[in-house]
Amino acid sequence: VWMGKIKIGGTHSKAVLVSAEGHILAETDGPCTNHWLVGVDNCINGINDMVQRAKIKAGLDPDTPVCSLGMSLSGGEQKAAIQKLIDDMRERYPKLSQSYFITTDAIGAMATASDYGGIVVISGTGSNCKLVNPDGTQVGCGGWGHMMGDEGSAYWISHLAIKTFFDARDNLVTSPHDINYVKKAMEEYFQVSDLMGMLPHLYRIFQKSHFAGFCRKLAEGGSAGDALCQHVFTEAGKALARHIVAVLPKVHQDLFSGELGLPVLCVGSVWRSWELMKSGFAQVLSEAQAHGYSHFQKYSLLTLRQSSALGGAKMGAKNAGASLPLDYSANVNVFFSHTFNQ
Amino acid sequence: VWMGKIKIGGTHSKAVLVSAEGHILAETDGPCTNHWLVGVDNCINGINDMVQRAKIKAGLDPDTPVCSLGMSLSGGEQKAAIQKLIDDMRERYPKLSQSYFITTDAIGAMATASDYGGIVVISGTGSNCKLVNPDGTQVGCGGWGHMMGDEGSAYWISHLAIKTFFDARDNLVTSPHDINYVKKAMEEYFQVSDLMGMLPHLYRIFQKSHFAGFCRKLAEGGSAGDALCQHVFTEAGKALARHIVAVLPKVHQDLFSGELGLPVLCVGSVWRSWELMKSGFAQVLSEAQAHGYSHFQKYSLLTLRQSSALGGAKMGAKNAGASLPLDYSANVNVFFSHTFNQ
Repeated sequence: VWMGKIKIGGTHSKAVLVSAEGHILAETDGPCTNHWLVGVDNCINGINDMVQRAKIKAGLDPDTPVCSLGMSLSGGEQKAAIQKLIDDMRERYPKLSQSYFITTDAIGAMATASDYGGIVVISGTGSNCKLVNPDGTQVGCGGWGHMMGDEGSAYWISHLAIKTFFDARDNLVTSPHDINYVKKAMEEYFQVSDLMGMLPHLYRIFQKSHFAGFCRKLAEGGSAGDALCQHVFTEAGKALARHIVAVLPKVHQDLFSGELGLPVLCVGSVWRSWELMKSGFAQVLSEAQAHGYSHFQKYSLLTLRQSSALGGAKMGAKNAGASLPLDYSANVNVFFSHTFNQ
Repeated sequence: VWMGKIKIGGTHSKAVLVSAEGHILAETDGPCTNHWLVGVDNCINGINDMVQRAKIKAGLDPDTPVCSLGMSLSGGEQKAAIQKLIDDMRERYPKLSQSYFITTDAIGAMATASDYGGIVVISGTGSNCKLVNPDGTQVGCGGWGHMMGDEGSAYWISHLAIKTFFDARDNLVTSPHDINYVKKAMEEYFQVSDLMGMLPHLYRIFQKSHFAGFCRKLAEGGSAGDALCQHVFTEAGKALARHIVAVLPKVHQDLFSGELGLPVLCVGSVWRSWELMKSGFAQVLSEAQAHGYSHFQKYSLLTLRQSSALGGAKMGAKNAGASLPLDYSANVNVFFSHTFNQ
């Protein structure tokens, strides 16, 4: 009995094959398989390809379906779309899996870290925040994609830096800092020589993941001391913290009272730039705490040491009537804690 | 000798056939033919179709090319793309026109209103601002499309209202006013029952012109007294005025000193909601004037009484060595004037 678990991201996807005892047998990578971005057909083909390669890599028979396939993807709460995805997978690839379970990337991550709950803040290509209370109830903020949010994500950071440059050139808004590093980095990353050259990257050949990838250059600039790069990451820290503040009123009392204070699980590549976001993030949470959350005394930021696919596999197994033991303490790492001044 | 002139918009296009004496012989309409949005092939086919229908409507031989074809479209400053468009048109439809001229929608509008210059502020599906000085030099602000600007446009107004609703629901940002009118109008216009339902309209089936069309419902709400609708239009007024402030430092002294003060040519359907935008617009210009433009004593807002295609035809004719006399005073209408307090 093996269980597959797939994490579907805006830029790339990851499949993990797990034994009934919870051991990882094989991992495979794939391209972006988000059905919102690539369509249902590409999504299904990509998933099948990753799982079949994982079976072969683990030395298993590719014609024998896995016991369950747990998938986490953004947009995983849309019931009708998800059911269609599962129906199509069953029909097209009957040897893929016996049962299917789909959840959001946030819930998959949370299930990897804890069965008690907390707040998940995702900032990768896009961004999203989900509160999971100890009783299992969920409250979300964000996750609407780049056209209606994604605040604090790699896409948003890239966009903010480039928009600051456009507005400065147009004399529409004065940039808070020198724009030369961002200008040069943009010209190099997108291979353009002027603002006009950016238009295809914004429209005809726009690819969210490529656009968001510019964030890495900005992180390099910020680490090297460029003030505008540091500014956009500080703003991202504020934006991500605002997602937490948005769900604070719905946080169950018990989630504040553990040893770690409010546990915030941080998922996605943007969190690698935590040092650049820290001041903005801490400022917004301190302001919120000071304005009426007296029971909010401490928070801790956690990262996953294991792929969030593990939680997806666990939930998939549970859905199929099996249980997958997870050692939560081995799965997470506390990278920041803050206790507010009394 | 007849001259065609085409105005290419984000939502629809218009062709006008003009005699050598400047009389309009026929007008035809077509769909959006912006090559950035619909591709070069659809653009060329759409243009040919409109011109040929205009020839037939005017009782002229469709196989005889017009003398010149002047076209105004957003993105008309991109030399390489424009040359390719012209080359493709010549090759595919040799009976279309003898000569071609392409300019931006802003410059086409300005050429219809005046040969002395002024500031054009376009707010239709998208937005754009262009200063044309008496010596012909141009300075632009905006016009980068919905991914990087379009502030104050119908798209932007629609987006601002919907984003305000999303953020209120997420508890991310408190709405300044009751959201119920916007909620109901959105559900009705997009035929959705919740926020999730908006996702296809933002991504898979996103059409800028349809999304921007929601602005009409907001204008209705604003006129009927809804505070949030009024708020988004006030913000649009501010945003459009900021485009003018952006080019103010480059305005030639002489443009301030005419009878009308600084002439601002207002183009596009959003200006029909001027009454809703007025307070925000006037506020931003007053603030800018108070902060160091002592020679900026008065401004007047003008609309075109004739299609901006007329200016495009004039420029196309000029490019072909002909001249098309225009009675500018008959082409414009002053709908607002303001003199600052001394």
